[in-house]
Amino acid sequence: MTQSRRGGGRKARIEIRTAPRALVNPAPPGQAGGQYRPLSEADMRAIYATALRLLAELGMGEAPDWLVERAVTAGATTSDAGRLCLPETMVEDIVAGARKIIVFHGRDPAHDFELGGERVHFGTGGAAVQTLDLESGTYRPSTLRDLYDFARLADRLENVSWFTRCCVATDLEDITDLDINTAYALLRGTTKPMGTSFTLAETVDPIVDMFDLALGGEGRFRERPFCKAHISPVISPLRFGEDALEVTQTCIRRGVPLNCIIAAQSGATAPATPAGFLAQSLAETLAALVVVNLLAPGYPMIFSNWPLVIDLRSGAFSGGGGESAVMNAASAQIINWLGLPSGVAASMSDAKAVDAQMGAEKALTALATGLAGANMVYESAGMMAALLGVSFEAFVLDDEMLSQVNRVIRGIEVTDETLGFEAVSDAVFGEGHFLGSAQTMAAMERDYFYPRLADREPPVTWAERGAKDVWQKARERARAILAEPDPGYLDPAADRAIRARHRILLNV
Amino acid sequence: MTQSRRGGGRKARIEIRTAPRALVNPAPPGQAGGQYRPLSEADMRAIYATALRLLAELGMGEAPDWLVERAVTAGATTSDAGRLCLPETMVEDIVAGARKIIVFHGRDPAHDFELGGERVHFGTGGAAVQTLDLESGTYRPSTLRDLYDFARLADRLENVSWFTRCCVATDLEDITDLDINTAYALLRGTTKPMGTSFTLAETVDPIVDMFDLALGGEGRFRERPFCKAHISPVISPLRFGEDALEVTQTCIRRGVPLNCIIAAQSGATAPATPAGFLAQSLAETLAALVVVNLLAPGYPMIFSNWPLVIDLRSGAFSGGGGESAVMNAASAQIINWLGLPSGVAASMSDAKAVDAQMGAEKALTALATGLAGANMVYESAGMMAALLGVSFEAFVLDDEMLSQVNRVIRGIEVTDETLGFEAVSDAVFGEGHFLGSAQTMAAMERDYFYPRLADREPPVTWAERGAKDVWQKARERARAILAEPDPGYLDPAADRAIRARHRILLNV
Repeated sequence: MTQSRRGGGRKARIEIRTAPRALVNPAPPGQAGGQYRPLSEADMRAIYATALRLLAELGMGEAPDWLVERAVTAGATTSDAGRLCLPETMVEDIVAGARKIIVFHGRDPAHDFELGGERVHFGTGGAAVQTLDLESGTYRPSTLRDLYDFARLADRLENVSWFTRCCVATDLEDITDLDINTAYALLRGTTKPMGTSFTLAETVDPIVDMFDLALGGEGRFRERPFCKAHISPVISPLRFGEDALEVTQTCIRRGVPLNCIIAAQSGATAPATPAGFLAQSLAETLAALVVVNLLAPGYPMIFSNWPLVIDLRSGAFSGGGGESAVMNAASAQIINWLGLPSGVAASMSDAKAVDAQMGAEKALTALATGLAGANMVYESAGMMAALLGVSFEAFVLDDEMLSQVNRVIRGIEVTDETLGFEAVSDAVFGEGHFLGSAQTMAAMERDYFYPRLADREPPVTWAERGAKDVWQKARERARAILAEPDPGYLDPAADRAIRARHRILLNV
Repeated sequence: MTQSRRGGGRKARIEIRTAPRALVNPAPPGQAGGQYRPLSEADMRAIYATALRLLAELGMGEAPDWLVERAVTAGATTSDAGRLCLPETMVEDIVAGARKIIVFHGRDPAHDFELGGERVHFGTGGAAVQTLDLESGTYRPSTLRDLYDFARLADRLENVSWFTRCCVATDLEDITDLDINTAYALLRGTTKPMGTSFTLAETVDPIVDMFDLALGGEGRFRERPFCKAHISPVISPLRFGEDALEVTQTCIRRGVPLNCIIAAQSGATAPATPAGFLAQSLAETLAALVVVNLLAPGYPMIFSNWPLVIDLRSGAFSGGGGESAVMNAASAQIINWLGLPSGVAASMSDAKAVDAQMGAEKALTALATGLAGANMVYESAGMMAALLGVSFEAFVLDDEMLSQVNRVIRGIEVTDETLGFEAVSDAVFGEGHFLGSAQTMAAMERDYFYPRLADREPPVTWAERGAKDVWQKARERARAILAEPDPGYLDPAADRAIRARHRILLNV
């Protein structure tokens, strides 16, 4: 193909090079997915039917008395084995009545976005216990400072639509300290929508009080609920987790939006056959939906069904393979088909180094889930080592990779204008090329993404500039962002008030 | 999500670890794509209609007299501007009568595969002039020895279904030497289906004679045409290339299957608007199809419409972005919709280093085109630096990445058996997990891919083993394969006969 690459000539190249550099983002977050449909309509019906049957016939184990009482009033029954069986019509009615569209608020309204339909947003998740150190290039225990730094990084990266704590501050031993300071680090680092976990129901009230203070007064969080709770109210296979149910109740009382996550593992806590896995994990997420809607009909809940894969050889979780990609994509497709706000996990990698494995695994899983139309793709920035680790460099690289993914999702607009019969005619009967024309310049600035980290220079230029790999370039960019001062998102008076009431261990 | 990851317990993990290691490839080449549809039916109709209109109204420039004569006999006209105009019905009739299914032969019949429908195969292409040196990690001019080494590598990598010469032997100055020795290096290195370019029509006969000798006698190649010609008979926008038309005629006379490639460049030789680009390049590939079918109705031709993207900032080609992914996927979708054997280009990268950029760009473009159902995805192993370079390490890493892509394309089988209601019931009322069950073991060995290069160890193990990135691991694997002796694919008597007739410059 060398011939055609020589076309155009030197003059034409210079002409195009002197054009103004495009700065428009051609594909911001919120592109409409759904062009990739791993499952047929019949497949989805069969999986849904099996999920309903699992809930009706096997039911859910370990439902606490208060839940059994409410559920039975709504039509459920208890089996001889003591399990809570949810009839099909009851579950279908709850699906029909559940919240379909959720506005996910940022502390800054400029970061608000709407969840639902087939709009796609990427953001973080995770509970990594190790951080890939920016200086040493090796893993060490994650700290509270890391969490604050990751929050600041997320705040600056366009494709990270929200920030859920991506690592655990392992330097904090006390569970209350951990929950409080996790929320505080996020408050300091970003005004994007955020998410956190509540280890105990008791930490919900003080944290929401802190959020109220950050917004300027009591009750303000309920008006702008900018932080959602990540909760796993079901333990696979098919039983409830009592602690998480308590957190759920408390969050609903305080107006904290819910992200109910089922993260079953193939061949361990769910079937190894992908179809069976999806049926069981769908049943479990539906069980969570039933609980939430029994407590508060129409309450905002993200329906997060994240299929996790384990590697037969080690029994350990693996997030970067083709199975993860197709199963999470299928999960998003089914959730969207049910009309519920969908959450899945992708852009994960099993790699430890910021290398070609990382790039391939993240792009593969991000593209599959994005094209499937997942509303919220969790774990999609920075996560390494099968979620055991997190990396600053991966964070900034993922952001750029997600721009490319969003560009794919945006697709191709076909109109008389874009088909451009006249433009071709002009080129054929004119100069014989399209370089530098008004149509070309407009399209190049509107339709194409221009990366800042990815190297597009010829080999000789790359060598002259030090033969850097993109890990090095990402390190430089991450360092530059982290060297910036605290963004000042927390009002000093609010900060003093928070520190007066809570043991805040982050000093920046 | 740490809680659920701790589930299962130590005993269960050991149980699964002692299981036999899966060796079955869960998704060999030839998976059925088409689950990703970037264009709507209306989009495709509009693009096709514009392509037909371009051929009918603007026509093709620089048609040689013999072609005008044949075309006019078949219904074409010449315009006042001296262009060859192809009426819609003529083009549509030729599409209808064109070859839909092609068997692509290997020299070894075990490597034969069928092209058509939505079956997906990945293989090589390209004309890189620089090789990323395995020892120095820098680029140097590509040689004939490199080509032989790449052929041997391709021969050993399962997902590389065919081998088209990926680099130019820049150590050969004479064009005839180049063509002859390129074909010879491929003959020595692999018995998979192969592909090459003929710089001049005069080299077709001697090379096909060489192929006959390799197969054991005159006329044998015609019976098992294991090498296709890569030809670009159209120069964008919308004119014929006379030299390539001559090569086309000669190849048809000698029974060499054709891969007619349009590789227009956005904003340079084709419109920058993706829809307009696709309309023009589709018209051009249709023009090639017309020529081939006028010469020999139903002759095997791969309909290769490879949208190439240029970066506005430099005017240089870029192969790794989201635009490349979506435009090549759309191209495959349209070709498949027309029922023709589709060829596109993907798994390209602009990266120079074997790094995260490379991984992401290759996976993004490979997955998009694979899921779109491209029959032949060219450039999909080893290509670097926007096709200027090629790398041994990238070659072996791409092969493994393509296994993951093929796993995604395979999708999810939904049957009563795979839905496994009984298996869930057994787990719920039995041990509470799925570890080690017969269903689990069978699925894990049948449905999951286990990489050999990608690292799935925990961070501590990775560090203990030298904190290697996957570039290092790929280098070791490439070296090991290349250290093997010549595969002996060329019979010594045939080799002597070939060397007696041709100036063979490869000495291995």
